[in-house]
Amino acid sequence: MDPDAVAKAFVEHYYRTFDSNRPALVSLYQDGSMLTFEGQKFLGPAAIAGKLGSLPFAQCQHDIATVDCQPSGPQGGMLVFVSGSLRTGPEEHPLKFSQMFQLLPAGGSFYVQNDMFRLNYG
Amino acid sequence: MDPDAVAKAFVEHYYRTFDSNRPALVSLYQDGSMLTFEGQKFLGPAAIAGKLGSLPFAQCQHDIATVDCQPSGPQGGMLVFVSGSLRTGPEEHPLKFSQMFQLLPAGGSFYVQNDMFRLNYG
Repeated sequence: MDPDAVAKAFVEHYYRTFDSNRPALVSLYQDGSMLTFEGQKFLGPAAIAGKLGSLPFAQCQHDIATVDCQPSGPQGGMLVFVSGSLRTGPEEHPLKFSQMFQLLPAGGSFYVQNDMFRLNYG
Repeated sequence: MDPDAVAKAFVEHYYRTFDSNRPALVSLYQDGSMLTFEGQKFLGPAAIAGKLGSLPFAQCQHDIATVDCQPSGPQGGMLVFVSGSLRTGPEEHPLKFSQMFQLLPAGGSFYVQNDMFRLNYG
């Protein structure tokens, strides 16, 4: 397993799902998963999906600029660090963001244990 | 122990040391610590300090915009996610950056197990 390839595949899957079928993101989180979104904290899949579902835009398109990855912990976890920009409609200006995930292995795949998101205001 | 207070204290210490006495950062890393700096990977305190010491500016001033923190793992680790800007001289434009750390406990304090840094180009 090449961790960089896994991280890149996760990131592509995550933002494609965010942009096309946001409610399906809930399946990437488990009990105990944490999201810190612009400083607000959410615990567990229901709270996290509730926050992501309540974001005040119907469309979103993420463009990824960088994906970095490091191994984390003895269980085969990974830290994934992303920068990019997003646009919440064809007429909107792109907003720069950064986001980090800790992925932990579960049943041959990974789930998101930690997720922190920030817009980087220009 | 309030994790947010620990994270904030770590971040203040890290960037104050970076900006005033960069070689002293080496003491924050241990064998096995990882730095990914603008996509380049470094392992262990000597390689990490070598990279930080080789950055092509003598002065640096970091201004921190946000610090987020989540617990990580059963041992009392912490994930710290920072955004801000830095300036490498009084005449230079500020550059936006984001950085994440995983801190692990050691001897009543913490060391940096994981460190990933990116400039966020405007």
